Amino acid sequence: MSVTSAQGFVASGVACGLKSGGGKDLALVVNQGPEYTAAAVTTSNRVCAAPVEWTRQAVSDGTLHAVVLNSGGANACTGDGGFEDTVATAHLVARGLHLAPGDIAVCSTGLIGERLDMVAIRTGIELAIGAASRSGGEDAAEAIMTTDTVAKTAARTLESGVTIGGMAKGAGMLAPQLATMLVVITTDASLTGSQAREALAHAVEYSFNRIDSDGCMSTNDTVVLLASGAAGVSPDLAEFTEGLTVVAKDLAAQLIGDAEGASHDIAVEVIGASSQRAGVEVARSVARSNLLKAAIFGNDPNWGRILSSIGTVPEVVAPFDPHAVDVAINGVLVCKNGGIGEPRESVDMTPRQCTITIDLKAGPEAVTLLTNDLTYDYVTENSAYSS
Amino acid sequence: MSVTSAQGFVASGVACGLKSGGGKDLALVVNQGPEYTAAAVTTSNRVCAAPVEWTRQAVSDGTLHAVVLNSGGANACTGDGGFEDTVATAHLVARGLHLAPGDIAVCSTGLIGERLDMVAIRTGIELAIGAASRSGGEDAAEAIMTTDTVAKTAARTLESGVTIGGMAKGAGMLAPQLATMLVVITTDASLTGSQAREALAHAVEYSFNRIDSDGCMSTNDTVVLLASGAAGVSPDLAEFTEGLTVVAKDLAAQLIGDAEGASHDIAVEVIGASSQRAGVEVARSVARSNLLKAAIFGNDPNWGRILSSIGTVPEVVAPFDPHAVDVAINGVLVCKNGGIGEPRESVDMTPRQCTITIDLKAGPEAVTLLTNDLTYDYVTENSAYSS
Repeated sequence: MSVTSAQGFVASGVACGLKSGGGKDLALVVNQGPEYTAAAVTTSNRVCAAPVEWTRQAVSDGTLHAVVLNSGGANACTGDGGFEDTVATAHLVARGLHLAPGDIAVCSTGLIGERLDMVAIRTGIELAIGAASRSGGEDAAEAIMTTDTVAKTAARTLESGVTIGGMAKGAGMLAPQLATMLVVITTDASLTGSQAREALAHAVEYSFNRIDSDGCMSTNDTVVLLASGAAGVSPDLAEFTEGLTVVAKDLAAQLIGDAEGASHDIAVEVIGASSQRAGVEVARSVARSNLLKAAIFGNDPNWGRILSSIGTVPEVVAPFDPHAVDVAINGVLVCKNGGIGEPRESVDMTPRQCTITIDLKAGPEAVTLLTNDLTYDYVTENSAYSS
Repeated sequence: MSVTSAQGFVASGVACGLKSGGGKDLALVVNQGPEYTAAAVTTSNRVCAAPVEWTRQAVSDGTLHAVVLNSGGANACTGDGGFEDTVATAHLVARGLHLAPGDIAVCSTGLIGERLDMVAIRTGIELAIGAASRSGGEDAAEAIMTTDTVAKTAARTLESGVTIGGMAKGAGMLAPQLATMLVVITTDASLTGSQAREALAHAVEYSFNRIDSDGCMSTNDTVVLLASGAAGVSPDLAEFTEGLTVVAKDLAAQLIGDAEGASHDIAVEVIGASSQRAGVEVARSVARSNLLKAAIFGNDPNWGRILSSIGTVPEVVAPFDPHAVDVAINGVLVCKNGGIGEPRESVDMTPRQCTITIDLKAGPEAVTLLTNDLTYDYVTENSAYSS
């Protein structure tokens, strides 16, 4: 159930002093082949970290042999010196594993605007190379945690015999003090570079791009897919893509479930949308309303704040008639045709899970986006210290 | 210093039982002429309240004789019945003042999705008509308060002898539980309808559209300008527009200064922008970062959260080089050329006022947007009860 579930991969997670608390803070995932196909999706933030710039270049030929990840520092907004630190990190891993630096992806997470402790990184890489094993997936997942309260892993074996496994920390659009979403997914399927890119793009669109905790986007978000071909199977691309999407959704749900400070997990379901994009934009407008998210923290089914959020989406993006929209909260139709529906008092808001269903009555598409409420603890965790 | 500062206006604010606490909850502003020029700017939310729909129609001919405003209910998402309530409100005022209903603007603020108590409204209108006087501006400002802690008024007399005065509650983009921004500005200048529209559009753009407390947009936001011509002066349009903008900025600053739960007033200054729009979009991305606003609540000058917000603005909207951006917080240049600047420890975050200066180095334009921090009290006030 981890990044070492698929055949052909070893991993490790070690402590090298990057985190002040002394916990594991450097992870390594190595593809032992026989194939080294890879794809990656990185943040769309124009301000991106040095490791993101490096990794985009490293994966551009569709090949990676290893990924090195550190917590305890994002290496973002650190100038030329920061980029040199990333280059040095890749070179240290390459030298230890007798590989080319250009086949090493680098991921970092932590505070923006501070240089990394490269003495610690060097020590960590030596330790991680020595510790890498077939059973190291859980340690690796632990080493990339920042304010995550639990390590996040998932795996699945498809009917074709191919296994897909992965690990994740933080969250992308979720951001919080978690700072960054880092995800590594491995598979023993035999894939071409374009198959890997196509499958990963689809999986990310329907998983990590459909969670939104606080609307903030990180400088370091990275999702990497590595394929070893060790199972000796070239799967049907549709089957593989579906399996990859399931694993990615599993990890995404774990991320939103661990969003700091949350007391409600909120599923925003938009049905009757004219397009997937329309549904996503409507759902995102709701998921980003501080007013609504504070109300849900207070167990208040304040549907007026849902309607006022929906109304901010331009008609060109999401055509619908505001006077036709229905909204149900936890199954109670509180808003009917844009107006007053069932009494809000009849909604039971006490469960942790809250489901908001919005029927735009404008088409056949349905979208679900996951978010969480806005709580005292969110403010505490994001104001108490730099992260 | 109020909506009755200019000649030709009477106003009142009375209690009629719409607010559960028994406070003043219905306001009336009447233009006694000799001219009745008017303009209005209303919410761009596609889900807009019945009074907004009514007022847009009433002002479309460039003429209004009176504005009636109530707190204690937004009359939004209330269906056909809600619209009939607004029509009835305008008719009651018109009958009492011997005017046409089409010359009465209606504004409402409070909870979305509840019908108004029309018995109370009827009583309130009778009381308000009886109480309207040249000294009623302060009462009117008090009657439109919801969770505002102070009534907000402003006035200014220009060199040409023209006076401009106004009142405001809540805030537009600011939204919070304040729910809605309602503003009435009066002047004794003699203006044509097109002059009034042009001046108001400019004033709103540089005042109410440059405050952003929590990124939420109300269904009820309305800014009305009434011109009586009682001073007998047709001012130079540039002079008048400048004066109107000063009054609007004064009211906008009062709104953001009273944003619920705030412990820091934050000015986001963007300089070196390629255009006003580029500057506004960059400033707004920063003003909407929950991560940054929670950090500022914790007196943490977390400039990495500023850079990561800036990076989300598309290049087509705001061309700039992320590696060239400087950021100063309270005068300390914490980020230089997109990288590490002065030590963050040297920033004094203890004053209530916090100034963030972002130099994009991409052009000559400068923009200032006002916001506030994200605090426990924001969560409390927006979760404790429906609003």
